[in-house]
Amino acid sequence: MTARRTVIDVLKGETVFPPPVWMMRQAGRYLPEYRATRQRAGGFLDLCYNPDFAVEVTLQPIHRFGFDAAILFSDILVVPHALGRDLRFEEGHGPLMTPIEPTGIEQLDEAMFHVNLQPVYETVRRLRAELPAETTLLGFCGAPWTVATYMIAGRGTSDQAPARLFAYRHPEALAKLLDRLADHSADYLIRQVEAGADAVQIFDSWAGVLDEASFDAFCAAPVARMVKRVRTAFPDVPIIGFPRGAGSLYDSYRAATGVTALGLDWSVPLSQAKRLQQSGTVQGNLDPLRVVAGGRALDEGVDAILAGLGGGPLIFNLGHGITPDAPVENVERMIARVRAGSHR
Amino acid sequence: MTARRTVIDVLKGETVFPPPVWMMRQAGRYLPEYRATRQRAGGFLDLCYNPDFAVEVTLQPIHRFGFDAAILFSDILVVPHALGRDLRFEEGHGPLMTPIEPTGIEQLDEAMFHVNLQPVYETVRRLRAELPAETTLLGFCGAPWTVATYMIAGRGTSDQAPARLFAYRHPEALAKLLDRLADHSADYLIRQVEAGADAVQIFDSWAGVLDEASFDAFCAAPVARMVKRVRTAFPDVPIIGFPRGAGSLYDSYRAATGVTALGLDWSVPLSQAKRLQQSGTVQGNLDPLRVVAGGRALDEGVDAILAGLGGGPLIFNLGHGITPDAPVENVERMIARVRAGSHR
Repeated sequence: MTARRTVIDVLKGETVFPPPVWMMRQAGRYLPEYRATRQRAGGFLDLCYNPDFAVEVTLQPIHRFGFDAAILFSDILVVPHALGRDLRFEEGHGPLMTPIEPTGIEQLDEAMFHVNLQPVYETVRRLRAELPAETTLLGFCGAPWTVATYMIAGRGTSDQAPARLFAYRHPEALAKLLDRLADHSADYLIRQVEAGADAVQIFDSWAGVLDEASFDAFCAAPVARMVKRVRTAFPDVPIIGFPRGAGSLYDSYRAATGVTALGLDWSVPLSQAKRLQQSGTVQGNLDPLRVVAGGRALDEGVDAILAGLGGGPLIFNLGHGITPDAPVENVERMIARVRAGSHR
Repeated sequence: MTARRTVIDVLKGETVFPPPVWMMRQAGRYLPEYRATRQRAGGFLDLCYNPDFAVEVTLQPIHRFGFDAAILFSDILVVPHALGRDLRFEEGHGPLMTPIEPTGIEQLDEAMFHVNLQPVYETVRRLRAELPAETTLLGFCGAPWTVATYMIAGRGTSDQAPARLFAYRHPEALAKLLDRLADHSADYLIRQVEAGADAVQIFDSWAGVLDEASFDAFCAAPVARMVKRVRTAFPDVPIIGFPRGAGSLYDSYRAATGVTALGLDWSVPLSQAKRLQQSGTVQGNLDPLRVVAGGRALDEGVDAILAGLGGGPLIFNLGHGITPDAPVENVERMIARVRAGSHR
């Protein structure tokens, strides 16, 4: 029970080399065993809300690759779903919801929130019991802004224009929505930690489409509110913030939000990543397509990250989720190269 | 003939306040007169290759709003089209091309390049003759990387995955393609300057999807090659580089490429923009959706840019093209507020 969890050590600021490694979307369609379970489960949400299936797919990449962290299998949109918003996943369309109107924000159904999310907490409990002691269990949720983009548009969009326009036209309504999402998402993370999560990650996949004033107000401030609320319950739980695409705004994000560590997308240059690492742990940031391509492109990408960031607190990861077309043998090659760690 | 062209003054490093203003895609679907001409012309390419129509739509926003710069109406994909690649625009699908294979790069038809582009040069000649002397005429082209993303995918994509994978799998072929595009695009700009363009802009719309090593090799290096070639013919012509979404990599882009001025997308924070402005002119960077929203969102966006960047060389612009749903009266309001310039 006291086995070393390197991801936690690194999140606490320790430099470990070779660094620990996991992958965003490591339980996903690139794995044949995931596709098999998914087929048995039926729909995507059946996978998320059934602890038997969710535990099974969460553990699959741990069994196959021995990653240093497992991340709860779920979806960022279970939070609005648990607040009474409809949600369905259609093949080839991603998530579909009824777009929320400004007046709909008052009608979110908060009473059943944690009841609806019990299967997720049960999944976390079982995972912590089944995982090897040295494997870190990560909980997660979406950041309020990113979740709001789907609630407002009713679907994924390439530029999040519906949510950005909503923000400009109904700033007070958006602020109210973000506050509610922040508080419920924080409570959701707190319950995950109570159930056994060792650390949590906040995914802000659409942080990169905002101008500076909007980023501060809609991305950084709600995450700061969440971090404060989680820390009130669990002062020491490590929190990884992942404001994907934030570019130069990464520099102010950690100070503004108080997150423990920064998840870096693959567009963050190593010079900036090194600067960010001066003030805390970083996680990332291999282009997932280097794993699809394999060969020299993969090796060079791994080596650049190890050489640039291996001298400080680093959790090796991709700069975004692994894609369905990534060959399993390239994932193996990536892990082996990270763990060989010969390029410090 | 000697009337003051403020855009050129600012491109040469002068601070002018209130700053000159124009908008990317200012000749576009948000204008009823553009939609009328487009209907008469037939297809989108008919508009690009017919000097009568192209001159007409280029001048429409100048007549209506009195912008300080006119930008040649054309499309970045006329360059591969003039090299013999097929190109068509279908309503609701954007550009469609036959994806180029590595072996296709040797077969680009270079002999007819400038012949095919004669209508564009004719458009530039007529525009310079018809424009008021104080209005700057901008030529433009796409950057090699961005043009290559369409040539490789055969269409617009949300993440440019086909081109990024091509880059990882066929690095030598991509380098060859980028070199050819760089040289032809530079020659294309040179002809535009010969025909009367006062300055040129290089659009790298998909610069933001690359990791650092790829950005240096596929985005910055080919633009540097272009700048060198254009400067050999015209040492003093101002060149605006617009590596949209480059984030922190904006900082190295100007030095690496030698462009005169930087076009900033709306995600560039004002703190970074100010730093970039220390070493030269910047252009931007209002979120186009603030123009769609209007009202307070528009005013606050304009004021923030004037307050943050008005003390140095600034060309006021959007951070990306104006969208078709932008009300004309909001464009008027934006221009009036910039020209009132009361927020320095």
